[in-house]
Amino acid sequence: MAPTKVNIDLQNERNKCTFNVEELTNFLDEGPQNTKNRRELEKKILSIKGIRDEIPEEYLSHKEKYENAVRKSVLLYKAIKDNNDKNTPLEEKIRASFRNVISSAIFKDNSPFMLHNAMFLTAILGQANDEQREYWLKRAENYEILGTYAQTELGHGTFLRGLETQATYDSNTEEFILHSPSITAYKWWPGGLAHTANYCMIMAQLYIKDKNYGLQPFMVQIRDEETHMPLPGIHVGEIGPKLGFNTVNNGFLGFNHARIPRNWMMMKNAQVLKDGTFKASPNSKLVYGTMVYVRVTILNTASIYLAKAVTIAIRYAAIRRQSQLKNGEPEPQILDYVTQQHKLIIAIATAHAYHFTVRWLWDLYVKVNKELGRGQLDNLPEMHSLACALKVISSADCTALIEKCRMACGGHGYMLSSCLPFLYGVSTATCTYEGENTVLLLQTARSLFKAWGQALKGQPLSPSMAYLADKSPSSTFDGTLDGIIKSFQVVAKGKLSASVSSFEQYLASGLDPEDAWNKASIQLTNAAEAHARVLVLTAYKTEVERKTVTLSPPLKTVLHQLLELYFIFWTLEKMGDLLLYTNLSEKDVRVLQKRYEDLLEKIRPNAVGLVDGFDFRDEVLNSTLGAYDGRAYERLMEEAQKSPLNAEPVNESFHKYLKPFLRGKL
Amino acid sequence: MAPTKVNIDLQNERNKCTFNVEELTNFLDEGPQNTKNRRELEKKILSIKGIRDEIPEEYLSHKEKYENAVRKSVLLYKAIKDNNDKNTPLEEKIRASFRNVISSAIFKDNSPFMLHNAMFLTAILGQANDEQREYWLKRAENYEILGTYAQTELGHGTFLRGLETQATYDSNTEEFILHSPSITAYKWWPGGLAHTANYCMIMAQLYIKDKNYGLQPFMVQIRDEETHMPLPGIHVGEIGPKLGFNTVNNGFLGFNHARIPRNWMMMKNAQVLKDGTFKASPNSKLVYGTMVYVRVTILNTASIYLAKAVTIAIRYAAIRRQSQLKNGEPEPQILDYVTQQHKLIIAIATAHAYHFTVRWLWDLYVKVNKELGRGQLDNLPEMHSLACALKVISSADCTALIEKCRMACGGHGYMLSSCLPFLYGVSTATCTYEGENTVLLLQTARSLFKAWGQALKGQPLSPSMAYLADKSPSSTFDGTLDGIIKSFQVVAKGKLSASVSSFEQYLASGLDPEDAWNKASIQLTNAAEAHARVLVLTAYKTEVERKTVTLSPPLKTVLHQLLELYFIFWTLEKMGDLLLYTNLSEKDVRVLQKRYEDLLEKIRPNAVGLVDGFDFRDEVLNSTLGAYDGRAYERLMEEAQKSPLNAEPVNESFHKYLKPFLRGKL
Repeated sequence: MAPTKVNIDLQNERNKCTFNVEELTNFLDEGPQNTKNRRELEKKILSIKGIRDEIPEEYLSHKEKYENAVRKSVLLYKAIKDNNDKNTPLEEKIRASFRNVISSAIFKDNSPFMLHNAMFLTAILGQANDEQREYWLKRAENYEILGTYAQTELGHGTFLRGLETQATYDSNTEEFILHSPSITAYKWWPGGLAHTANYCMIMAQLYIKDKNYGLQPFMVQIRDEETHMPLPGIHVGEIGPKLGFNTVNNGFLGFNHARIPRNWMMMKNAQVLKDGTFKASPNSKLVYGTMVYVRVTILNTASIYLAKAVTIAIRYAAIRRQSQLKNGEPEPQILDYVTQQHKLIIAIATAHAYHFTVRWLWDLYVKVNKELGRGQLDNLPEMHSLACALKVISSADCTALIEKCRMACGGHGYMLSSCLPFLYGVSTATCTYEGENTVLLLQTARSLFKAWGQALKGQPLSPSMAYLADKSPSSTFDGTLDGIIKSFQVVAKGKLSASVSSFEQYLASGLDPEDAWNKASIQLTNAAEAHARVLVLTAYKTEVERKTVTLSPPLKTVLHQLLELYFIFWTLEKMGDLLLYTNLSEKDVRVLQKRYEDLLEKIRPNAVGLVDGFDFRDEVLNSTLGAYDGRAYERLMEEAQKSPLNAEPVNESFHKYLKPFLRGKL
Repeated sequence: MAPTKVNIDLQNERNKCTFNVEELTNFLDEGPQNTKNRRELEKKILSIKGIRDEIPEEYLSHKEKYENAVRKSVLLYKAIKDNNDKNTPLEEKIRASFRNVISSAIFKDNSPFMLHNAMFLTAILGQANDEQREYWLKRAENYEILGTYAQTELGHGTFLRGLETQATYDSNTEEFILHSPSITAYKWWPGGLAHTANYCMIMAQLYIKDKNYGLQPFMVQIRDEETHMPLPGIHVGEIGPKLGFNTVNNGFLGFNHARIPRNWMMMKNAQVLKDGTFKASPNSKLVYGTMVYVRVTILNTASIYLAKAVTIAIRYAAIRRQSQLKNGEPEPQILDYVTQQHKLIIAIATAHAYHFTVRWLWDLYVKVNKELGRGQLDNLPEMHSLACALKVISSADCTALIEKCRMACGGHGYMLSSCLPFLYGVSTATCTYEGENTVLLLQTARSLFKAWGQALKGQPLSPSMAYLADKSPSSTFDGTLDGIIKSFQVVAKGKLSASVSSFEQYLASGLDPEDAWNKASIQLTNAAEAHARVLVLTAYKTEVERKTVTLSPPLKTVLHQLLELYFIFWTLEKMGDLLLYTNLSEKDVRVLQKRYEDLLEKIRPNAVGLVDGFDFRDEVLNSTLGAYDGRAYERLMEEAQKSPLNAEPVNESFHKYLKPFLRGKL
């Protein structure tokens, strides 16, 4: 088979697609110019000599993986630096970059430089005063220094007040003394920290004259700029292999009375004067801005990871043939099995749902951020609570569906060359980092609990929780999309109400409020998840309806079919809750099930067109199963030939170990 | 902290355990003598010099991992061979070995020899006639040859009739000519096939004089016994890295007109005479025996993998302290959070549920196998259908809970040194191999569909499906364990009935039966899962009640608490189905929720004792987080120090790539 020929089954799928795929791509990119820019950047970066691997990373040792990743990182980041457009406002640049994923053509498992941009620069922007910002941002943006950000410690993550690293002010020398008082105080996890970064922003407990002033951010030089040797008082190294991110060089960092100048404490929000006077931050809530930003980007990556996984799985399902539906007929494409459609089409719809939700949330973020700049903080709690709840379900849903996509590819999905295990590895991490999901659900539950009390008192609620104040919501189920949103609101309210009652009963039984809260916490997290469900359904529907107005009818139709499928899927998935809190009937369930099965049938012919519309280049997908031409078997075999083990017909271990064993000479 | 000292939190947990842990271990081992034998074997194997890694496997390159695995395999299998007790009947030996997992102290990711015993020997036993068996079994059991088993092809898995490999009989030379007519015909996946095994049992399409006689098993020599070079007409190599099993040396195998003698076709079930006469098998169903056996062992490994994962997660949850429940109090153990108990205690109960279920199923298997030996096949379909359904939910449940255990350990669960990602990797594979789970659910649905028809006609049903014939099952929910089983039967019946109706409606709408089946297949798989749920609930309850009679009251109490928790958990989990098909009320749900929360509180003090009772040695757990002494942070740090990257303060990539980049000299 010639390399350029497209698998006939895949070609047939494309022939029967009812909409214009390029129109979909432009729509997802928010305009043809964005598509053009993205493709040009991709092309430019892929044309850099040596930037892609000849032998896949997964054959290398852990050390070789790192060295190879540094080699490629300097090529990639040089290009990113050269490409930096300083004229476009940052917020626009970020929005336009939501679908820029070219780095995954270079790294299946990310770069050791990734935290320099993602966290180090962000932390400087959020924590440095003007003078500090001028100095550090310039050096960092020009890549004169390479940085990372360290907060989590070996023994402490979620509970920030529990962090142990100390920064003690010495007014004699006007320095801070950084110290890790125990093994659990070691910083642990930051990408690039181990052998790559020479600077690091750390969070530490500030002490002045034996008094603790809470967590503050400090810039630390960890390695000599000339020799890269760790500086005195710095104990730095790598933490070892992980489920993913194995080219990221995650590190640990311990301090033994290391000293930094006074003005290396980042002083945007709080200051320490020369004499040791502490000037508190005018508003400590400002730090939430960065957290919210990071969580919005998690929503975006969750949606991108899932879009990639389902592109791979749908294309493979179109070329894989298996079993017999009917005697005497050829083996059908596995995409024709309704159970397979059930696994995969919801994954397309979910990638869309979060695609729209993140853009809706970004608009809000930009608005709230502008308000913050004017010192107006009213909408920050709402923004923070939305970002919490949506971070949780986007990461959880997308991770679960990526794994479903992988398993829908059978054994071949288990091959690293399919790229699906890598996608799972980086995606599942988002459920844990930047706020562990259960912890965030409990935080969301706190906001809901508070809102519930306010609603009872007739006080105004933030827009996303306003439905809690609806005194007599109709528990009549109707199958329209708006009706489904209403029903999910009724469910969220019902679950919140039940957990509040449960909490109150535990309280009445004699428990302390904290213990009563703990005992009711399973129900509280369920209520928080139900609320998050309302948010996504609402955002997805609002945005699709608002944004598809100018699209051609065929594309509009299929985008609305996906929207409807998403709504019906979740109605069936949460059937128990709806039976409990609305008047949903057994007959309704049967009707919904039929409607769902019919929607799968309607969307099925456009499945390949829909994933083609995500417009991931083969290099970006990095997958033997998912390439545009559908030559999955050939690629699996070609990729296997790259194994260094396959370079020799007989491995030396035969002579050394195996033969003596088989001869009974051990 | 002295290495031998146990973490104080963990010690306190052990002090408050209400039952005798050794009694639990003996109970799980089915007798103190079995515990003793197991421990002695473990000790013996661990005392072999060099059998454990100094540098963890995960730091090595793919090739080095393999070479190291061969090195360790010869040591392990030599010991296993020496330990082989030829006097105990095979069935007893297998049962006694259910909790023998010492090999996981040597391999986190299994041995390249694993298929020799697990499949090659099994295939010889199941497929060879007496004469062949005498010859091959002896060579294989003595490890004169090393074998594997190859069925799946690059393009074909589930659908056996679709396999392409050809074995064409040449009556002139009395040989079979083995041939792979295309790339998709390549055998793909078998462990040890790539560079380790020198023999292989393969499944191929038998052709005699251009006529196809279906799939038959053939012995093939793939490598020279002396030189280990692949033989003429054999194209063999490795398939590359995977999500797990990276030390197993999974391989591909293609034939180019390779020849084998006539009597290398395994002729227990069908024969080819010298002149090319084909003699069909007296009963083709006999091959099901092996499939059933393998699926029973999957149930067992699923339960073991989960028991390990939850041992790690519970011990870590006992030593990890985080956040504050109450102002001014120290950070609590995370095991005190009810959300954490909700994640983990069901995992202990599930490991127990499948522990009991597999022993119940094994008894049945032994019985049915004896009947087969007498030519009595009546109970084979029932046995086959039970093994199908139970393989599906054991693999799916345990895999999902292993992942829940990993995520319950936060970031540290993501470290390979926790061993949790390895456990997930080997466990998730069981959802795909030996019958992909969705495919098996559809097979189960076929049996149910057939039984449903028989029930309507008043024909007798097999014991496990007899409840389908109950004409007027009570839809009254009562919260006793028997009542819950009854309700789950009502659900399974309801779901089956709904899918049959749906199928019939699709049929009535003009679809072919195959298309109607396909359209109803989501509902059919749900019905099959509901049936499997009934089986596990029934088996778990029956066995606990039967086997705990002679136990001491404290242990009996906690085992019954776990049983009850398991029942309530699933009742709440499947609330929607119960609301739909029984008279379960909102009030019942509230009562069940409270009962569940109270059970967590009751079991919580015994959580560490329960996982200690699984009696996994530290070497077997192979986990920084899960060791008996609870020194998780120290072990994480010690393990990180083993990284070859940490052997040098500055990696050479700094001078080669990073410094020129930071100096702008790229």
